Amino acid sequence: MFLRVINPNTTPAMTATIEECARAVIGPGVRLEAVTPAMGPASIESHYDEALAVPGILAEVLSGERLQVDGYVIACFGDPGLDAAREIASGPVVGIAEAAMHAASFLGRGFSVVTTLERTAGRAWELAARYGFAAHCKGVHACEIPVLDLESDPSTVDRVTALAAEALSRDRSDVIVLGCAGMADLCAAVSRRIGAPVVDGVAAAVSTVAGLVRCGLRTAWSGEYALPPPKRYTGLLSAYGS
Amino acid sequence: MFLRVINPNTTPAMTATIEECARAVIGPGVRLEAVTPAMGPASIESHYDEALAVPGILAEVLSGERLQVDGYVIACFGDPGLDAAREIASGPVVGIAEAAMHAASFLGRGFSVVTTLERTAGRAWELAARYGFAAHCKGVHACEIPVLDLESDPSTVDRVTALAAEALSRDRSDVIVLGCAGMADLCAAVSRRIGAPVVDGVAAAVSTVAGLVRCGLRTAWSGEYALPPPKRYTGLLSAYGS
Amino acid sequence: MFLRVINPNTTPAMTATIEECARAVIGPGVRLEAVTPAMGPASIESHYDEALAVPGILAEVLSGERLQVDGYVIACFGDPGLDAAREIASGPVVGIAEAAMHAASFLGRGFSVVTTLERTAGRAWELAARYGFAAHCKGVHACEIPVLDLESDPSTVDRVTALAAEALSRDRSDVIVLGCAGMADLCAAVSRRIGAPVVDGVAAAVSTVAGLVRCGLRTAWSGEYALPPPKRYTGLLSAYGS
Amino acid sequence: MFLRVINPNTTPAMTATIEECARAVIGPGVRLEAVTPAMGPASIESHYDEALAVPGILAEVLSGERLQVDGYVIACFGDPGLDAAREIASGPVVGIAEAAMHAASFLGRGFSVVTTLERTAGRAWELAARYGFAAHCKGVHACEIPVLDLESDPSTVDRVTALAAEALSRDRSDVIVLGCAGMADLCAAVSRRIGAPVVDGVAAAVSTVAGLVRCGLRTAWSGEYALPPPKRYTGLLSAYGS
Amino acid sequence: MFLRVINPNTTPAMTATIEECARAVIGPGVRLEAVTPAMGPASIESHYDEALAVPGILAEVLSGERLQVDGYVIACFGDPGLDAAREIASGPVVGIAEAAMHAASFLGRGFSVVTTLERTAGRAWELAARYGFAAHCKGVHACEIPVLDLESDPSTVDRVTALAAEALSRDRSDVIVLGCAGMADLCAAVSRRIGAPVVDGVAAAVSTVAGLVRCGLRTAWSGEYALPPPKRYTGLLSAYGS
Amino acid sequence: MFLRVINPNTTPAMTATIEECARAVIGPGVRLEAVTPAMGPASIESHYDEALAVPGILAEVLSGERLQVDGYVIACFGDPGLDAAREIASGPVVGIAEAAMHAASFLGRGFSVVTTLERTAGRAWELAARYGFAAHCKGVHACEIPVLDLESDPSTVDRVTALAAEALSRDRSDVIVLGCAGMADLCAAVSRRIGAPVVDGVAAAVSTVAGLVRCGLRTAWSGEYALPPPKRYTGLLSAYGS
Repeated sequence: MFLRVINPNTTPAMTATIEECARAVIGPGVRLEAVTPAMGPASIESHYDEALAVPGILAEVLSGERLQVDGYVIACFGDPGLDAAREIASGPVVGIAEAAMHAASFLGRGFSVVTTLERTAGRAWELAARYGFAAHCKGVHACEIPVLDLESDPSTVDRVTALAAEALSRDRSDVIVLGCAGMADLCAAVSRRIGAPVVDGVAAAVSTVAGLVRCGLRTAWSGEYALPPPKRYTGLLSAYGS
Repeated sequence: MFLRVINPNTTPAMTATIEECARAVIGPGVRLEAVTPAMGPASIESHYDEALAVPGILAEVLSGERLQVDGYVIACFGDPGLDAAREIASGPVVGIAEAAMHAASFLGRGFSVVTTLERTAGRAWELAARYGFAAHCKGVHACEIPVLDLESDPSTVDRVTALAAEALSRDRSDVIVLGCAGMADLCAAVSRRIGAPVVDGVAAAVSTVAGLVRCGLRTAWSGEYALPPPKRYTGLLSAYGS
Repeated sequence: MFLRVINPNTTPAMTATIEECARAVIGPGVRLEAVTPAMGPASIESHYDEALAVPGILAEVLSGERLQVDGYVIACFGDPGLDAAREIASGPVVGIAEAAMHAASFLGRGFSVVTTLERTAGRAWELAARYGFAAHCKGVHACEIPVLDLESDPSTVDRVTALAAEALSRDRSDVIVLGCAGMADLCAAVSRRIGAPVVDGVAAAVSTVAGLVRCGLRTAWSGEYALPPPKRYTGLLSAYGS
Repeated sequence: MFLRVINPNTTPAMTATIEECARAVIGPGVRLEAVTPAMGPASIESHYDEALAVPGILAEVLSGERLQVDGYVIACFGDPGLDAAREIASGPVVGIAEAAMHAASFLGRGFSVVTTLERTAGRAWELAARYGFAAHCKGVHACEIPVLDLESDPSTVDRVTALAAEALSRDRSDVIVLGCAGMADLCAAVSRRIGAPVVDGVAAAVSTVAGLVRCGLRTAWSGEYALPPPKRYTGLLSAYGS
Repeated sequence: MFLRVINPNTTPAMTATIEECARAVIGPGVRLEAVTPAMGPASIESHYDEALAVPGILAEVLSGERLQVDGYVIACFGDPGLDAAREIASGPVVGIAEAAMHAASFLGRGFSVVTTLERTAGRAWELAARYGFAAHCKGVHACEIPVLDLESDPSTVDRVTALAAEALSRDRSDVIVLGCAGMADLCAAVSRRIGAPVVDGVAAAVSTVAGLVRCGLRTAWSGEYALPPPKRYTGLLSAYGS
Repeated sequence: MFLRVINPNTTPAMTATIEECARAVIGPGVRLEAVTPAMGPASIESHYDEALAVPGILAEVLSGERLQVDGYVIACFGDPGLDAAREIASGPVVGIAEAAMHAASFLGRGFSVVTTLERTAGRAWELAARYGFAAHCKGVHACEIPVLDLESDPSTVDRVTALAAEALSRDRSDVIVLGCAGMADLCAAVSRRIGAPVVDGVAAAVSTVAGLVRCGLRTAWSGEYALPPPKRYTGLLSAYGS
């Protein structure tokens, strides 16, 4: 089994963190690589960044197809480009927000999301609603640490832990979902400190996509997620046409 | 008041149709232009097309800002790039799917969407849910005419009329929503033939955005829709960074 | 285009305020009049008042029909008599609560309603649910100023501003909706002070109905909103029969 | 215990049918009267009729209060005036649509409503949503017999039975709800013929209100359903002011 | 009419309290008995207890059928075994959580539940959602008094009263629902002290089931709630087979 | 990793089929056993059967804990005893209905359930709603083959295939979910024949629970799913007390 984890932003250090967390949960016999797109934003902190990350993500799926990748993970909590990626990938594609929310819903009645910037909370709620977890998601809380500062800021683990503990109590939730791929390496520490399950979407998504591949499952190949009708593309993006 | 209607695909003939329908509903004192992006797909018929239309749309908003545009319409029924456009535009931005669904909900208990390809129905349902119209939308029906054939195919008006009539009766709905900007010019004819209101999103969106501007209303300028944090962009899309 | 704005209560001073706010947002070529019913309560502050305002409202629609009115606004935040008015009007009919909620949903992820009396909050939530905005409406907050004191009480603008600012922060919402036609003239001042969009339903409804008329749209004329079956009425209300 | 059943229309023959069905389900020690309003429509078949029935209904509640009535039933399937009646009644008030839907939800997974005119179906769905039964209500079906013809038309029982049987099978529902007070006397016959529970709202509402009174329960007397603030009423309805 | 109230736990003192509250609301001509199962937990304070109470409850329904019981009440706020009991009982079966929530929804816009242990709150929310009252239920609050201490702890009535008052104000609700059969005898005192309706599920369920029987209504006898297909049972539970 | 798959019914042949399908999707390094309870129904085809299967299931969890099982699967599509099992298991517990619905939601916009008996459809819908998939589940269809006949009836694969194909087209869904553990071995054949993904809950649940264990995730251990408070149990079930 060959899995590709796509870091939707263009910061290789973050790709490395993601790859490490992903590798920790794959069993024997799984080949995994994490990739950084050739174009797009250095981090994703707005709808604008998220939308403009998508061409780079899709390029990684198109190249993955030529390498016979069996399944993909999109490792940004906004799940950018998920529907489009499903149309062009022959194996399953899983976003880290959806995987984390799914996993959390197996572990308790409700979960709270702890994320980076308050301005991304609306997107988290929108995804929760789309995936069916509007009632399971009890709160979305921002630590206001920019994505690229998560790793360098020495206060990160303390601030995320404090926010997670407060979220559990204020939301009367059972489980914490980490709302950014850049938080993946905090998962075990935060869980130990707050005494509750903490879900990192990267680990959850890699496990989920590996499980789907093992079950022989892939995105429906006719109907909404069939290959896109071929057509002409112009300008900067003309290479995406066929 | 200066309004810009963005045709998200790169087919100028469709921009012309959209512009004509838009002009028909603006009152005196409104300046309106319809624009075609410099990059992207010739038509939007998949999630892939929709996602890759967004960079071109956002470029039109960025250039519109330099021209002091007061309000924008995104004229594709998938409402691509709407959230991102709202972050960077100083005036209101309205999508034709949302405008059409809003308008229809003033006119009856429930509406049916008549669209081009069945594969886009899932997106229409998703938008209906996000905008609050999950219960108002009673059905989504596809005529299976590709977007760029709508104008040239002589059977279009008959097929759309027949489908609309059947939708009203099968869904027990009161109103038809046309699910593609390329159908804008069919609106009056279909309404007359089926004896029920038919909403074209282009007209609805232009009216809506003009009304918002007249009321002095624009997207909230702090919080989720504040200007995106500035950052580096790389590769093909580096011009989008700051 | 000839529009009629119906003030559902019988206080002419409030009709005058409503008319002024309505006139401010119509473009050239629109004729508009605001009317006061000949029967009913001096203000609407309970379900009882709201129900008993309806015969007076419907009389104004019936007389408007004889004058070939093109569209109607019902200017009370409970949207009293809206369904019944739609059955008897040949043009579109819009309530100020629905118009304000629709407008607000174009401007941000969620809105808060600032209204007069806490006892009307249940009705606001009920309307939000019916119109599809149960998830967009983040809170309903009462300033506890009776409707007819809004204009005379010198503290009104300060109290409404303070409540609006608190609502934005407590509800994590982006937009304020003013929950009473009597607050229409506060709109610009409150928006300036709190730094967020503030929607007055009167302006929003007038813009909306004008837009629908311009698009050639009206309530569905068969089915649920067809003309009521003619029948005998008795007693005080016998004039409403046919 | 003294209960008053209000027939919202002004047709005494229908009041008599309602009273008979109501009496059949009260136990010993309950005094019950059915009343006909002094004003309003001869039958309720539109939103217009329903709205204009409310002043007559409220007059019956006001006079009932002077007679120390312990609980009220509003016997029209649109539940007209329910909120307003709750503000002015000292005992509980129950509508037949709400009572029937509640009762049906105790008897199976889902119910179908069999009603008179298709044009009233929208209102039935709206009530189901408000009362919490949007998912329990599986369908609303109209026999297209006008309200006042139900009793005289010899085909009524056959047509309602056939429609009920079809509804059970088409909707995969377990229970039938009769959608008009004028169908109350068909209940037992239709149930016997189709082999499934059939709920008449008049019987259900009388049982429900009697049960609430026996439990010492009444509408909350502060907050939303407190007595309306006193105020001046003008014109035809001036007697409703205080 | 012969009604059986089943106390799902095996503590006879609690059965006695339940029986007394039940008897207070039945009119003349109703025979009622409260029964204690022969197996199961002494109190129900977890999903584990609730699941293991069900065999004892079903045994009481099976024996009730031999005695021609007309209707059943399951007197634990988790409504354990309700669906299964409905399959094997020939008369209606009502749970106290569902009956209390139904009753509360007739009395105000929203209710708050006051229950014993916080750990049972998730189940209360789940039942509210299933019964259709997700929007009516405004909060669930725990007094953290174990079920079997409710009667002996002298502070019970004060703590429940304080919690109920706080719930009304914090949740902006109109009505309190008592979330445990063991609180049935507190109902009148708490209501008097907080000035709002307080619903005890035992009284509500007995009234409801008596009303259904009086209306001639019972669970649908074909489809989902038909008698279970006969089959072999093994081990400790072999007596439940046929 | 040591996983236990519990067949909730007492038919060892079905346990064998389940075990085979479970084994096919575990990677190297996972120890898995399927167990048959010592008490309960031979098959689960009603709420009554489902409720009475729970004591046997819980006994298998209790004995699994003594063997240090890392995760559990409950292999009946009603997910019986799931909440209770989560309270007493130290590792994660996953039901096959929830796992199948989760998996299906990664593969397309909507899924249809193909199950055994129509009378179990209500339970499938209830689970879909609880898990968040009310909008993703487009239909539930019964082949009316009793559970224990699935294996012996030679027409099973043809009938299930035909029903699955019809469901896809009637429901406009993308994915089929098999609604019974006894159908696990049909999965690949049906998928091949209908040309769409088919999800078997046994495989999905085993993959899911293995993934959760690999991620170090387990049910929240405080709050709702904490160990049940110890207490006395009486009668047949006294061994369940502590």
